[in-house]
Amino acid sequence: MRIDLFLVPVPNIESQLSDKTLVVIDILRASTTICQALKSGARAVIPVMEPGEAAEMRTKIGIETTVLGGERNGLKIEGFDLGNSPLEYTEEKVKGKTIILTTSNGTRVYNRTAASKLILTGALVNISRVVKRTAQAGNDIVIICAGQNGDFSIEDTLCGGMLLHRLATDEKTEMELNDAASLALLLYRSNSRTLKQTISRGEHGRYLTKLGFEADVNMATETDSMPVLPILKDSRIIIEET
Amino acid sequence: MRIDLFLVPVPNIESQLSDKTLVVIDILRASTTICQALKSGARAVIPVMEPGEAAEMRTKIGIETTVLGGERNGLKIEGFDLGNSPLEYTEEKVKGKTIILTTSNGTRVYNRTAASKLILTGALVNISRVVKRTAQAGNDIVIICAGQNGDFSIEDTLCGGMLLHRLATDEKTEMELNDAASLALLLYRSNSRTLKQTISRGEHGRYLTKLGFEADVNMATETDSMPVLPILKDSRIIIEET
Repeated sequence: MRIDLFLVPVPNIESQLSDKTLVVIDILRASTTICQALKSGARAVIPVMEPGEAAEMRTKIGIETTVLGGERNGLKIEGFDLGNSPLEYTEEKVKGKTIILTTSNGTRVYNRTAASKLILTGALVNISRVVKRTAQAGNDIVIICAGQNGDFSIEDTLCGGMLLHRLATDEKTEMELNDAASLALLLYRSNSRTLKQTISRGEHGRYLTKLGFEADVNMATETDSMPVLPILKDSRIIIEET
Repeated sequence: MRIDLFLVPVPNIESQLSDKTLVVIDILRASTTICQALKSGARAVIPVMEPGEAAEMRTKIGIETTVLGGERNGLKIEGFDLGNSPLEYTEEKVKGKTIILTTSNGTRVYNRTAASKLILTGALVNISRVVKRTAQAGNDIVIICAGQNGDFSIEDTLCGGMLLHRLATDEKTEMELNDAASLALLLYRSNSRTLKQTISRGEHGRYLTKLGFEADVNMATETDSMPVLPILKDSRIIIEET
């Protein structure tokens, strides 16, 4: 199986997604927040590019049934119901609702994925589900790490590396990797015993901690704590029916 | 000493270069070609963005004293004297001449470096010179890997990692690294004994080999084979006077 990982959403990535299984990873925090929202009973998460677009969509879908969520520079957007902290996405706040989510890095990737066959949201909190589903689909895989403002992020690369490692060891997948995938695998294997520390001491982990979101960082590193499988269908991220 | 490495020239990198020593790395092939040209006695290498700009500059400086060099998609640009193969930059062709060079990745970085205090061209072929000069300057360091069309490249990251490793071991530099620098260091240390193979088997190494440039790939991996120190001054890359 051919597996290409991208450390950031590179230019022209759209051309490399045809018929692939795509895994979008932004564990601090969009991927983790999406898992949490769906686990808490949200009907769907709609990823959008900009706050204005989110507000328009809310008017279209209906104010009663929607929740506006997202961040810029890590903080809640003015006038929005929720920020981008997974802890906010409780049953009380999101059950039965459609979340319209706009974040700086993660949600933007979903707008560039049209050609893919299967589009999953990957995080540490649902890693085993992603491993099984990507292996079962049998398509070649593209892993896009959302990164941080166009730059590489260590936590997404580690998560991508863990996915590769588990595909190799649990699923005995024969993998043909691009250079970035080999690098992610090396990074994971060198840090597998210190995953939480590596992530919390990383640039983005420290930034979020400084903003008061240390609990989010801890939550994002809890492997398999949210065993849901978010899948993008018709521009909405939902839990795959099994 | 603070050292930040960038796997690719990220957006807004200009804002992070003030008063730093900057090392630009694009070993396949711009950095290696620049070293070779200066070693062969070229007066200077002027990095420019586009072929049209190169031709205009030639007219301005003088056709007799200049050589147009560069590539797009790895191949020589139509109407240019030389491509981007270091092997072409012989004494016979470049001695005493000013090279106007435009490449897809490496030369573009030099147009974004204005705020830096000292701007060096780094490659494996001149690595020891770069290690010594960056340590001697004593400024904080930024290492920019040119990458490949906006994507990470393993050969530049390895070279950056080797620079970090040598600063730590040879120069006993106390280093405070960003996440990407830590990653580059890990990559180098995991591949230090197989540097040539890792680079020639990498994506760009294979691409160049397919185009017939296997000798360039080999040449670029010859550590310290061109002990020159290219430095950017007044938009021209020259050998630093000692």
